[in-house]
Amino acid sequence: MINKKNLKLGTARSAIRELFEYGKKQKALLGEDKVFDFSLGNPSTPAPKEVDLAIREIIASGNSVLTHGYTSAQGSLETRTAIANAIKQKFNTEASADDIYITCGAAAALCTVFGALAEGFDTEFIAIAPYFPEYKVFVNGQGAKLQVVSADTKDFQIDFNALEGLINKNTAGVIINSPNNPSGTVYSKKTLETLAEILTRKSKEVGHTIYIISDEPYRELVYSDTIVPFVPTIYKNTIVCYSYSKSLSLPGERIGYVYVPAFCENANEVYAAIAGAGRAMGYVCAPSLLQQVIAKCIDVKPNLEEYKVNRNLLVDALTSYGYECASPDGAFYLFVKAPNGDGNAFAELAKTKNVLIVPGESFGCKEFVRISYCVDTKTVKGALPLFKELIEEC
Amino acid sequence: MINKKNLKLGTARSAIRELFEYGKKQKALLGEDKVFDFSLGNPSTPAPKEVDLAIREIIASGNSVLTHGYTSAQGSLETRTAIANAIKQKFNTEASADDIYITCGAAAALCTVFGALAEGFDTEFIAIAPYFPEYKVFVNGQGAKLQVVSADTKDFQIDFNALEGLINKNTAGVIINSPNNPSGTVYSKKTLETLAEILTRKSKEVGHTIYIISDEPYRELVYSDTIVPFVPTIYKNTIVCYSYSKSLSLPGERIGYVYVPAFCENANEVYAAIAGAGRAMGYVCAPSLLQQVIAKCIDVKPNLEEYKVNRNLLVDALTSYGYECASPDGAFYLFVKAPNGDGNAFAELAKTKNVLIVPGESFGCKEFVRISYCVDTKTVKGALPLFKELIEEC
Repeated sequence: MINKKNLKLGTARSAIRELFEYGKKQKALLGEDKVFDFSLGNPSTPAPKEVDLAIREIIASGNSVLTHGYTSAQGSLETRTAIANAIKQKFNTEASADDIYITCGAAAALCTVFGALAEGFDTEFIAIAPYFPEYKVFVNGQGAKLQVVSADTKDFQIDFNALEGLINKNTAGVIINSPNNPSGTVYSKKTLETLAEILTRKSKEVGHTIYIISDEPYRELVYSDTIVPFVPTIYKNTIVCYSYSKSLSLPGERIGYVYVPAFCENANEVYAAIAGAGRAMGYVCAPSLLQQVIAKCIDVKPNLEEYKVNRNLLVDALTSYGYECASPDGAFYLFVKAPNGDGNAFAELAKTKNVLIVPGESFGCKEFVRISYCVDTKTVKGALPLFKELIEEC
Repeated sequence: MINKKNLKLGTARSAIRELFEYGKKQKALLGEDKVFDFSLGNPSTPAPKEVDLAIREIIASGNSVLTHGYTSAQGSLETRTAIANAIKQKFNTEASADDIYITCGAAAALCTVFGALAEGFDTEFIAIAPYFPEYKVFVNGQGAKLQVVSADTKDFQIDFNALEGLINKNTAGVIINSPNNPSGTVYSKKTLETLAEILTRKSKEVGHTIYIISDEPYRELVYSDTIVPFVPTIYKNTIVCYSYSKSLSLPGERIGYVYVPAFCENANEVYAAIAGAGRAMGYVCAPSLLQQVIAKCIDVKPNLEEYKVNRNLLVDALTSYGYECASPDGAFYLFVKAPNGDGNAFAELAKTKNVLIVPGESFGCKEFVRISYCVDTKTVKGALPLFKELIEEC
């Protein structure tokens, strides 16, 4: 007896992972400097020095049982308090330790939230293209369906007509991700206000609260003056899923949180159901040492310098060659229109030059490709002439 | 829209956690030394010194991106190789890195295995009382049912007649846990051989493989000469779920693994479905720093001295007072028959003296109570006169 869906998920890697594994093989074959791998969103920047310092201090404290012991399932009170205080100060809003549920990264955060809100097979969540493809895996994993609003490929905000058309009595929530993977775009305040207006109206129409699930691993990764509005201050029924993977360059450590604002509707029930969903999946607690690191590093800023250099190099060169791309305000991705109009074919062509970029189809935008620029600047510089050749060959 | 099952799971704590939280409050009220808390299986012994040394070395290596970066979903090759080699050497069997899937502890290991083997709502797993109550939560979380073989309260091995009666065409696996939580008993080689014989015969009868899911967080915690047989060498269709929580006193760090022997039936499919189940639950990878710690500490032995002292103190005193308990070979639990024959009433009585022990009902044995002796020896010594009073009052 084997679960067929899980067998399929475990056998077929995501397109991104496939490309990354291909890159590793090519590097072994041709040499590290001959392959230009822009496939994965794996931070190339070291964790800020405060992180390793915090680890050293915690270990030096010598309280092993406290350092490595179970915390409560929702996370240590000290860390939850630190997170809540940071939210209060930074976003001028209310937050308390009881609103925070610490998770093994954003993926666990999303799965527990979907598990909390999914009532049964009919439940639907809505993602807005371009979107992180694992959303579908996570939503389906909780027995619910993912609906997708097709992309507004002009300015990568939200096609509200399409969104309204998808909302119905089974809609539990709308997933947003700003700064966005893969487009790098930040949703404007106006976009979020319109979204709030629609969801407020539609919640009344369908007779239950439609939540925003705001997936925010890139919240601090912004390169322009663009402001990333804090979604719960615009739409109160927002559940925030956060991760320190990108902001503190700790993707392998699996540490993040869910923030359920006390002012959102049914806050207590939502929070309890999140904890219950985590329990049902075996999430006993988030890694204890890292929880303590977060408490100590709560005010540490991400190191954006290398990403900024890479972004500027790529944007300047690619647009000068004639490429068009989405507004690259944040995250560490460029979402580029394939010069031949076909993201799959263009990514295949790039592969022949050992330039590894992800076809936009995975994200719901066939005519685009994603370039992850969380790489060594050398890789960017080495690839620029190849990007020039590529557009000339199209 | 709220998921009712998850809301319930998140609202009602387990009986063990309830008691632990009660203990914390009582300690705050009466003082640490006035409350004798034997509720939780949270190791009281520090992690072996090699663990913190390994953390220091890894951080000192200065390769932040490697230390804290994503590993592949199945875990780093280096750690999987170290685990496989340790299994080979220790148990004189075959094992390779490809058989190991590193997890966020045993809870995640169990959930992914249940997710891999559960075909649908009819799928059944069988636990053998006394059993860890979260098995039911994890099995139900994967949409399957838990059946329970009632306890053999004479020697805490397996009531094979009862087991045979429960096996049917929907049975996917039998969960065993030896050394056992809560009884402390180790299954003998003879018990496992009989179990293997039954499952081999029943697998043929029902037309599919019935796996043993061997939950082994206490494998190294043994105090007598008793040998803990390595289950896959007795029944090839065994999937091992291991955790370093107890053996290295790292319960909060969430690190363990699944071992799917290459010689078990459908090994590749089972392994892939485990990976798929993990992916669907948002288990991106196990914590990366801790993965590296495990590779460095693969031969480190657990520190059993304090547990041994506690166990001997308790067993000697309690039996001299007239208590009866299961053979306390391993883990760090004593499973004691309530002198009045009612575990719930006896635990309540103990509570009036601020002795916190868990009623056996949670584990499927109403007439027993569990004493977790992974505590300070002072706590054990302080509680002994109270245990004497308790039996005299019954």
